[in-house]
Amino acid sequence: MALLVQKFGGTSVGTTERIKAVADKVKRFRDQGDDIVVVVSAMSGETNRLLALSSEVMEEPTAREMDVLLSTGEQVTISLLTMALNQLGCEARSYTGGQVRITTDTSHTKARIKSIDEHNMRADLDAGRVIVVAGFQGVDDKGNITTLGRGGSDTTAVALAAALKADECQIYTDVDGVYTTDPRVVDNARRMEKVTFEEMIEMASLGSKVLQIRAVEFAGKYAVPLRVLSSFKEGPGTLITIEDDGSMEQPAVSGIAFNRDEAKLTLVGVPDIPGIASKILRPISDQNIEVDMIVQNVGLDKKTDFTFTVHRNDYKSAKSVLDKICIDLQAEASAGDNDIAKVSIVGVGMRSHAGVATKMFEVLSHEGINIQMISTSEIKISVVIDEKYLELAVRTLHSAFDLDDAATVKES
Amino acid sequence: MALLVQKFGGTSVGTTERIKAVADKVKRFRDQGDDIVVVVSAMSGETNRLLALSSEVMEEPTAREMDVLLSTGEQVTISLLTMALNQLGCEARSYTGGQVRITTDTSHTKARIKSIDEHNMRADLDAGRVIVVAGFQGVDDKGNITTLGRGGSDTTAVALAAALKADECQIYTDVDGVYTTDPRVVDNARRMEKVTFEEMIEMASLGSKVLQIRAVEFAGKYAVPLRVLSSFKEGPGTLITIEDDGSMEQPAVSGIAFNRDEAKLTLVGVPDIPGIASKILRPISDQNIEVDMIVQNVGLDKKTDFTFTVHRNDYKSAKSVLDKICIDLQAEASAGDNDIAKVSIVGVGMRSHAGVATKMFEVLSHEGINIQMISTSEIKISVVIDEKYLELAVRTLHSAFDLDDAATVKES
Repeated sequence: MALLVQKFGGTSVGTTERIKAVADKVKRFRDQGDDIVVVVSAMSGETNRLLALSSEVMEEPTAREMDVLLSTGEQVTISLLTMALNQLGCEARSYTGGQVRITTDTSHTKARIKSIDEHNMRADLDAGRVIVVAGFQGVDDKGNITTLGRGGSDTTAVALAAALKADECQIYTDVDGVYTTDPRVVDNARRMEKVTFEEMIEMASLGSKVLQIRAVEFAGKYAVPLRVLSSFKEGPGTLITIEDDGSMEQPAVSGIAFNRDEAKLTLVGVPDIPGIASKILRPISDQNIEVDMIVQNVGLDKKTDFTFTVHRNDYKSAKSVLDKICIDLQAEASAGDNDIAKVSIVGVGMRSHAGVATKMFEVLSHEGINIQMISTSEIKISVVIDEKYLELAVRTLHSAFDLDDAATVKES
Repeated sequence: MALLVQKFGGTSVGTTERIKAVADKVKRFRDQGDDIVVVVSAMSGETNRLLALSSEVMEEPTAREMDVLLSTGEQVTISLLTMALNQLGCEARSYTGGQVRITTDTSHTKARIKSIDEHNMRADLDAGRVIVVAGFQGVDDKGNITTLGRGGSDTTAVALAAALKADECQIYTDVDGVYTTDPRVVDNARRMEKVTFEEMIEMASLGSKVLQIRAVEFAGKYAVPLRVLSSFKEGPGTLITIEDDGSMEQPAVSGIAFNRDEAKLTLVGVPDIPGIASKILRPISDQNIEVDMIVQNVGLDKKTDFTFTVHRNDYKSAKSVLDKICIDLQAEASAGDNDIAKVSIVGVGMRSHAGVATKMFEVLSHEGINIQMISTSEIKISVVIDEKYLELAVRTLHSAFDLDDAATVKES
């Protein structure tokens, strides 16, 4: 008998048929004696329908009202899933984020969770009820509806699991686990049975898209065992765990992540003086544009080139800010490139293996792929390349680091 | 400068174009210096969409979850209308029923308002903001979402107007006022400039459909001036007011209401003993079936026939309850008829005019229309007739009581 938090995403609850299938699955766990808290997203398509409505009435919709609008998506799902559970004779009760009560800060459309009142939930669990909670949403101190940003339902699930000290937080998705890379790009990508939080964070932030990075960080911080598994087929999925089993056989590289969502911006010939980086990035972050990679080379003639990447959606506004900075700082030119991709190799084993970076660069060079930017962390090496080489790079690296399915003897 | 509560129904906010038109209208009032609280319904079609979803997952959906589901309809509208107002540069803020805070009892799907906290609204009004409130919904003491039943948005508007002591509660609909009868049945039906609360209550309960009877009762109780007017064309609409101007010229009959939504049930040959009426009606009301007209004739041979009407939707369940009662009470037979219509003449002037009933019966008799049931109140006389004679009855009575447009010299 365990306490499980189970999260079902938009695809898993995309139709009333699928909602009924989720109810079946939840009831099977409940019948085994597990206590269940279910977190659901909006039915797939619903968020986009609501966004389309809002764009018809306002060019840049007010953030507060956007949250009032979008939060209805999950509210529809919680009521329907609770009805479906009731129809199966399974006692259940739905809660909106505000009802739970999940308190957040006031940053509409990207709020952060501050606290969760588990009181109501505990009473329902004690009464044998399944609890169905709307993901993605909360309320601020004044009762204004807030949302956690797209994909925030994962974060809700982990936060509830942490608050309730759940035995496991299960994230049901349309994939059956976390793969060594995207199976759509590499045929023999392999499902991992386990992956560490650190690796998962690097994979998620680099575009593996299975889980929101915030949710993984949250889970790591509160040591919530997190499992990714499929809504549609049975299987153990992938467990994301705090333990690095330290096995000798641990591969140096666990997976290859990649990302087409970034754009590169460069300020050319900027005076190489102390504080110049913040002079460039401050106006960018003032526009709420997030910067990912940053590269600055040692300069000649007291001048340097400064390059960074932003989300592709922010490219236009970042470029216009940069054009202004270019004038203000008397730099030579500002340049930008949308047609880039980032490829990263990730693995906790990398810490103890020398030469991983060298091998990566050699493999790419051997395929004639030019590396435009490099950044590294303890367990990750990322490069920016021309987007057209993305698939080639990922496939070659996947094979070179012995990640292909056939090549694997044991995994963990 | 006045404080106005303006309510827009589902048709008035049925598309984003119409929502923008409502925003225009609201802003025009605001620009004149009026303080505005807007109450909106779900976009037309939305409630039915949600009902269809629920019926796909549960045969008889749990009432609590139904309220969670349906309340999203209005929540979508408040956010969109607030955005549309913001787009016009008009400061506005949306509130769900729970946020306002409209507290109700716990009767899910047909809750009654207990109290309204006007604190938040007052602060917004003082700050010059338009307030946009979701109609039809509230929360109970424990924070569970409740709804007021279909059409409950009118009730929300009146309740807010009462709580805020608004100067007028304006109900915008797809008709431009209250008519002497349904213009679809009688071509020269006439818009009334004024009608009393009492008359309006009799008209609404008898199927005039312009306003929910609860809303009118509520408005009458708190003396909230209520005006029905069109969302789509300019005009003064109809003012529903507490004053009976007592004019000598007051017509005896103000309007003809009718209703095809009822069904007739009869228990034949039931023992004529004290308490028999409650023995028949208690099991009916225990099923939450509302009874409208009740007729019991003096019986012969210590037996009597007992007839009553219910909403047509409740006909089947009422009939099966009655079949059981028939056996329990050893009555001779139970019978029912779905093909009936109720026609009523309404008017405060009726109080001081003798012979109105006689005239009504004569007019119908002259057309060969048989009267199956009669019930009367201070300002209303209703008859049940065969449904096929409905239009004929309404047109003839409308003309006989001098309500036709051409025949009118002055109205109020």
